[in-house]
Amino acid sequence: MAKFMDVHQGMFGVTPEALQAAHQADLDIQADEGVDFQHAWGDPVSGQVWCVSEAPSADAIRRIHERAGHPATDVWEVPVEA
Amino acid sequence: MAKFMDVHQGMFGVTPEALQAAHQADLDIQADEGVDFQHAWGDPVSGQVWCVSEAPSADAIRRIHERAGHPATDVWEVPVEA
Repeated sequence: MAKFMDVHQGMFGVTPEALQAAHQADLDIQADEGVDFQHAWGDPVSGQVWCVSEAPSADAIRRIHERAGHPATDVWEVPVEA
Repeated sequence: MAKFMDVHQGMFGVTPEALQAAHQADLDIQADEGVDFQHAWGDPVSGQVWCVSEAPSADAIRRIHERAGHPATDVWEVPVEA
């Protein structure tokens, strides 16, 4: 398992309820790929949402986000933390 | 106070020690601007470092990062979380 940051572009106007629903849609199916989505932050103005997760691979994250209806724009492994 | 995500580009090859030192340099002076840097994640391959903080403004974050020697490439307010 490794730590990842991913970002979704184009989520302009995202509300707390919409982000919670999107995050829950990930949580509902994340076990299928061994992913653990830990937190999400959204900016309604720039339309960006960032997610931090632990996962076996970037592709596992991409598959869960795609199946949940909100494909990730980019996924990066973040092996360094402080 | 509001929550913010910022990103630094160009930090290729960032090591755990380098990220910890950079983060500590922020922590050492953050009180001057009322900023609370909470966590940082780095990807040595893409050269990106993301920071989550609470702060009175994006400019307060920019000033601390600049004085600490690693100006932020972008800062976004993230009022929505899940």
